[in-house]
Amino acid sequence: MIVVMKTQATQENIQAVLDRVEAAGCKVHPIVGAERTVIGVIGDGTAVDRRQIGRMKDVENVMPITKPYKAASREFKPEDTIFSVGGATIGGRQLTIMAGPCAVEGRSQLLEIAHACKEAGAHILRGGAYKPRTSPYSFQGLGEEGLRYLAEAREQTGLPVITEVMDPALVPMVCEYVDILQVGARNMQNYTLLNAIGRSGHPVMLKRSMIGTTLEWLMCAEYILSHENNRVILCERGIRANETETRNTFDVNAIPVAKQLSHLPIIADPSHATGRWEYVGAAAKAAVAAGADGLMIEVHQQPDQAWSDGRQSLKPAKFKRLIDELRPIAAAVGREISGSSQVMNLNGQQPDSGQKVMVARV
Amino acid sequence: MIVVMKTQATQENIQAVLDRVEAAGCKVHPIVGAERTVIGVIGDGTAVDRRQIGRMKDVENVMPITKPYKAASREFKPEDTIFSVGGATIGGRQLTIMAGPCAVEGRSQLLEIAHACKEAGAHILRGGAYKPRTSPYSFQGLGEEGLRYLAEAREQTGLPVITEVMDPALVPMVCEYVDILQVGARNMQNYTLLNAIGRSGHPVMLKRSMIGTTLEWLMCAEYILSHENNRVILCERGIRANETETRNTFDVNAIPVAKQLSHLPIIADPSHATGRWEYVGAAAKAAVAAGADGLMIEVHQQPDQAWSDGRQSLKPAKFKRLIDELRPIAAAVGREISGSSQVMNLNGQQPDSGQKVMVARV
Amino acid sequence: MIVVMKTQATQENIQAVLDRVEAAGCKVHPIVGAERTVIGVIGDGTAVDRRQIGRMKDVENVMPITKPYKAASREFKPEDTIFSVGGATIGGRQLTIMAGPCAVEGRSQLLEIAHACKEAGAHILRGGAYKPRTSPYSFQGLGEEGLRYLAEAREQTGLPVITEVMDPALVPMVCEYVDILQVGARNMQNYTLLNAIGRSGHPVMLKRSMIGTTLEWLMCAEYILSHENNRVILCERGIRANETETRNTFDVNAIPVAKQLSHLPIIADPSHATGRWEYVGAAAKAAVAAGADGLMIEVHQQPDQAWSDGRQSLKPAKFKRLIDELRPIAAAVGREISGSSQVMNLNGQQPDSGQKVMVARV
Amino acid sequence: MIVVMKTQATQENIQAVLDRVEAAGCKVHPIVGAERTVIGVIGDGTAVDRRQIGRMKDVENVMPITKPYKAASREFKPEDTIFSVGGATIGGRQLTIMAGPCAVEGRSQLLEIAHACKEAGAHILRGGAYKPRTSPYSFQGLGEEGLRYLAEAREQTGLPVITEVMDPALVPMVCEYVDILQVGARNMQNYTLLNAIGRSGHPVMLKRSMIGTTLEWLMCAEYILSHENNRVILCERGIRANETETRNTFDVNAIPVAKQLSHLPIIADPSHATGRWEYVGAAAKAAVAAGADGLMIEVHQQPDQAWSDGRQSLKPAKFKRLIDELRPIAAAVGREISGSSQVMNLNGQQPDSGQKVMVARV
Repeated sequence: MIVVMKTQATQENIQAVLDRVEAAGCKVHPIVGAERTVIGVIGDGTAVDRRQIGRMKDVENVMPITKPYKAASREFKPEDTIFSVGGATIGGRQLTIMAGPCAVEGRSQLLEIAHACKEAGAHILRGGAYKPRTSPYSFQGLGEEGLRYLAEAREQTGLPVITEVMDPALVPMVCEYVDILQVGARNMQNYTLLNAIGRSGHPVMLKRSMIGTTLEWLMCAEYILSHENNRVILCERGIRANETETRNTFDVNAIPVAKQLSHLPIIADPSHATGRWEYVGAAAKAAVAAGADGLMIEVHQQPDQAWSDGRQSLKPAKFKRLIDELRPIAAAVGREISGSSQVMNLNGQQPDSGQKVMVARV
Repeated sequence: MIVVMKTQATQENIQAVLDRVEAAGCKVHPIVGAERTVIGVIGDGTAVDRRQIGRMKDVENVMPITKPYKAASREFKPEDTIFSVGGATIGGRQLTIMAGPCAVEGRSQLLEIAHACKEAGAHILRGGAYKPRTSPYSFQGLGEEGLRYLAEAREQTGLPVITEVMDPALVPMVCEYVDILQVGARNMQNYTLLNAIGRSGHPVMLKRSMIGTTLEWLMCAEYILSHENNRVILCERGIRANETETRNTFDVNAIPVAKQLSHLPIIADPSHATGRWEYVGAAAKAAVAAGADGLMIEVHQQPDQAWSDGRQSLKPAKFKRLIDELRPIAAAVGREISGSSQVMNLNGQQPDSGQKVMVARV
Repeated sequence: MIVVMKTQATQENIQAVLDRVEAAGCKVHPIVGAERTVIGVIGDGTAVDRRQIGRMKDVENVMPITKPYKAASREFKPEDTIFSVGGATIGGRQLTIMAGPCAVEGRSQLLEIAHACKEAGAHILRGGAYKPRTSPYSFQGLGEEGLRYLAEAREQTGLPVITEVMDPALVPMVCEYVDILQVGARNMQNYTLLNAIGRSGHPVMLKRSMIGTTLEWLMCAEYILSHENNRVILCERGIRANETETRNTFDVNAIPVAKQLSHLPIIADPSHATGRWEYVGAAAKAAVAAGADGLMIEVHQQPDQAWSDGRQSLKPAKFKRLIDELRPIAAAVGREISGSSQVMNLNGQQPDSGQKVMVARV
Repeated sequence: MIVVMKTQATQENIQAVLDRVEAAGCKVHPIVGAERTVIGVIGDGTAVDRRQIGRMKDVENVMPITKPYKAASREFKPEDTIFSVGGATIGGRQLTIMAGPCAVEGRSQLLEIAHACKEAGAHILRGGAYKPRTSPYSFQGLGEEGLRYLAEAREQTGLPVITEVMDPALVPMVCEYVDILQVGARNMQNYTLLNAIGRSGHPVMLKRSMIGTTLEWLMCAEYILSHENNRVILCERGIRANETETRNTFDVNAIPVAKQLSHLPIIADPSHATGRWEYVGAAAKAAVAAGADGLMIEVHQQPDQAWSDGRQSLKPAKFKRLIDELRPIAAAVGREISGSSQVMNLNGQQPDSGQKVMVARV
């Protein structure tokens, strides 16, 4: 870290900083300029608390040099993280398409849309059983009943399933039903939840909060990784900005930034990142062109009857067309959207897959 | 709600909206203008889902008329909510000063600062036993050991205590030790936690998230209130904006806005709202002048040794001076800062007694 | 517009609003609900001032229905605006690539980079002669000398040129040198400048401000269009958000949104939208995939010697590679990047010719 | 500045940075850590361009140490800037109250409100003759006619006047009519305008943009100060944040921050900072409590007839009450609001007299 002293700092106060840092076992490197003294600190950054030093007399600022995330960083693990879940690969040349309704509304609704998503080319089925709603009076999800329908849909379609979990106490139970846990944007910094998921060892997709910086996001991934649960997927789903024509603002920059700073796969969610179905296609194409490892898209048979987020849901036919339009863009950036990539994994037992999944070609 | 049809909407699609709304039991009121048709919907707003209507053909926009919060609204309960906790009053003419260290670091540290805070004029002791930290490798709080020290400090000083809780499963245990639960900014929309706290019936202070609108904040209060737990305190602690000289941006407007829209008491946290001790005083004065019902201020014996947030902590002497400087401002807006209310409550008055607390003048 | 009365509004105050609106020549449509009265106003929206009504007694809110921009709207002009400037087409099937240095630093620097940009496939040359710099002590641009170099570069390469203008008084002079004026993000709402440019009749590219909504942006375009200067290009160059790894946050949603709401062509500036050369490629690809009509990219021979913004500039070879990588993405969305349109203009066709430009296929 | 090299930086690339910096006449101070090398640069910071260094190979980041503003900084001029304009003092113990209508709407309107403002205790009259409006079709101000009314109002009341100027070419003309120029938030970074005002030597109030950091704001002040025009007043008028209940978010922190970093006086504009008259009082009180040197408040006889911004205007009686309510708060922070300073200036003292104004105590 670099400690910047005030221009009028006394020799005594400069010495106090030097002493404090050295006492913590770090080497100091004072740089005496014409106007002020700046102190370079070499050694284990965790030995000295940046904020404590910042409170010492005549200290103007303390600037960290090293990024605080370790296990999530590209420097720690230079090669891309790739893993497969229930037959679907996350990371690597094949893009992963997650699709399904915002909320599980019932058995027949889910099964119907699950088949439609699969036929359109989806690799993973999404569906919310626990819904974080702004209002306590809104539909809060079907709970475990919804999880059972998800499991049934997996059995019928062979698609692994992902669902959001909000209650740390329910993590073990939810793990029994689904292949991938999802941490929603509102819970990105819910550390109790992150720790519970980390301990579960289950694959997880961590959505970035509407306000989180990449650094904060990777620190949240670090919470999960610190439990040696390495199957973490990042998901950019839009930030909150000034625009009112869209529900959120899709931060497409986050894709190459995350790719540069971290080895974790990154998925984009154009449904939430725009909030309006008219713009989902453009955002999905942008995400693929920018290097995303996959997409999560909301699909509903009758969006104007959806129990939540119908405004941003595509109908199955439109979703299918979009996947087809995405293929040449994927190809242009050296990627592929498999309609049958899972078939290739049937002969190789993948982590957590348990059962063999039969997937029809599109 | 108001449904705005597109300028080129067909008669058929307009009729479809009318039919849908009427089928839900609402009355419709179409307004046919030169350019477009607008439909007023009268009746139970919850019967029709705004987002579903927004997804119907030729609908351009759907605008809600009624605010979605009920129990938290001033219309629902016109008079200010005032209650007392462990002898301290929240709301009403007397301002409530909460003070203490960011984190409970040990028994002697806490007891010493607790006495200092009380002597300086604080009415409630704060201290974190569970700390939400950006890094999983940082100090995470002393946990239940910290709670025991808080309870001991209360016994010694007579000050009721407030502490943050992050894990819904720990709510019942934490309630046994402390007088007021705190929901941190990062957990404002952690609905599982809000429900657990609502069910506990324990007094709670709900911090506004760094990005939350007043509407979202009051909806989170509504989650707690919906369990008929009415002892909810709002706390403005700064939002995230572009400024880099301060850690957060104190949204002082939030005080009169919350007062107008809601009956709940509102506390300001100038320590987090600035992030730098140099600015805590100015922000505290602004908060009182703007009509806050109290303040939460971080106080530490040796801020440059604090285990967290030393940069924004005041030393006891400075804190005491600040309280004295605040008194004439409080008086100017018809409020008062009592300096010895706690003395009268050492005999163990319980929260919720409902009775008006007698407060000695300083 | 819709006038929402307070729940406790008196009959007298409701009547006052009705009278006021009717006196302005509008028809009123009161909707009396169980809780409150809402008044629909039909007629010329400009006859009644929304903010005045909002200040009347018992009025809670006034919501506009009609978008305030007219000439910029897609409803006003359903077909895309396409025009050609100095031989380059803006809008339409062919994407327009603008490239060049952030600042004109000297004659040989500019001529060299101009030829390199042309060879790499650029259609328009950019270069700043007047630079808006945060510091008054930084290089402010070569001024008219820089304009002369731009004109010479155009003569040598056949590429039309674009440059930023900041001083309304200089607009006529700058028009003599360049083909397209640029309004920078900081000046988006500099109405004096917009009016001066509108009056000039010269083609202009209007950058969105770091904070502007689409509505505000289109209203600024409206300022120019209101002078019957219809050759307006929109440019998205990144907004200010919380991320610190990038200089700005590229709002890729703005592309489909602008396309839906307006007929004006839209260019993306991935150099400013990321601020770091490493991310320019990903953002450029995202922009094309999302439907942008072109790109503006900063190119410099020696970015580490650039007088401004070297951090975000590509070297010519890298720029050329990027253009090649963009071609299949353009094709995937039904667009094309022409590589030799300039050749046809070496005979000295002047800007503003209005004629449809014949563009050779690559 | 501090140059942070990447962890895997080669010796050759490190040496290249050292050579480059030394060639510019600066001393280098490499700090070789276990993981990476960091280079301290001592000497004239302007000799080396931070962004150029940032583009060199293996450079990860370049961090400035010195603030880029000079003449605006507290270090450059430790004592507060205080000056008087037309008999009103800006800065110092006496708070300055600027009041008047958003826009000059006509002669009688302005004269009436001018007298009312003076009687209520205002020291300076505000009124817009040139209005920056979002729509080109809205009222744009009376122009020079409005300036004449302002001059007449000054003559009748003795109050010096302030008005916004947007066109650099009009600065000399506007200076003939008014005592203080105002730069609006949208024009904070309109450098052409700032230079024109700097050259005029006229007193100026510089509003902070809706997005500007304190650093950017002070750099804009620096533009004016660089012309040796030292009579610069800062004005905080609210930033753009997420809240929708208020038009802007009042950044009250900006007051102590500006006071610490700069010697310039700072005024708060609670009318724009809230956008709703109901909240103006609370924001005004907060501003005074936080240490503002004065306030600018919109006052209108009939806000519901105002040609602009009626929603945030106070009626004269309410304004007068507010001034009275502010007095004890001012006193609590060691300030004073004079109620009759104007009386002494009725003899027609001209602006810019430079003499120290004698102010009667209330």
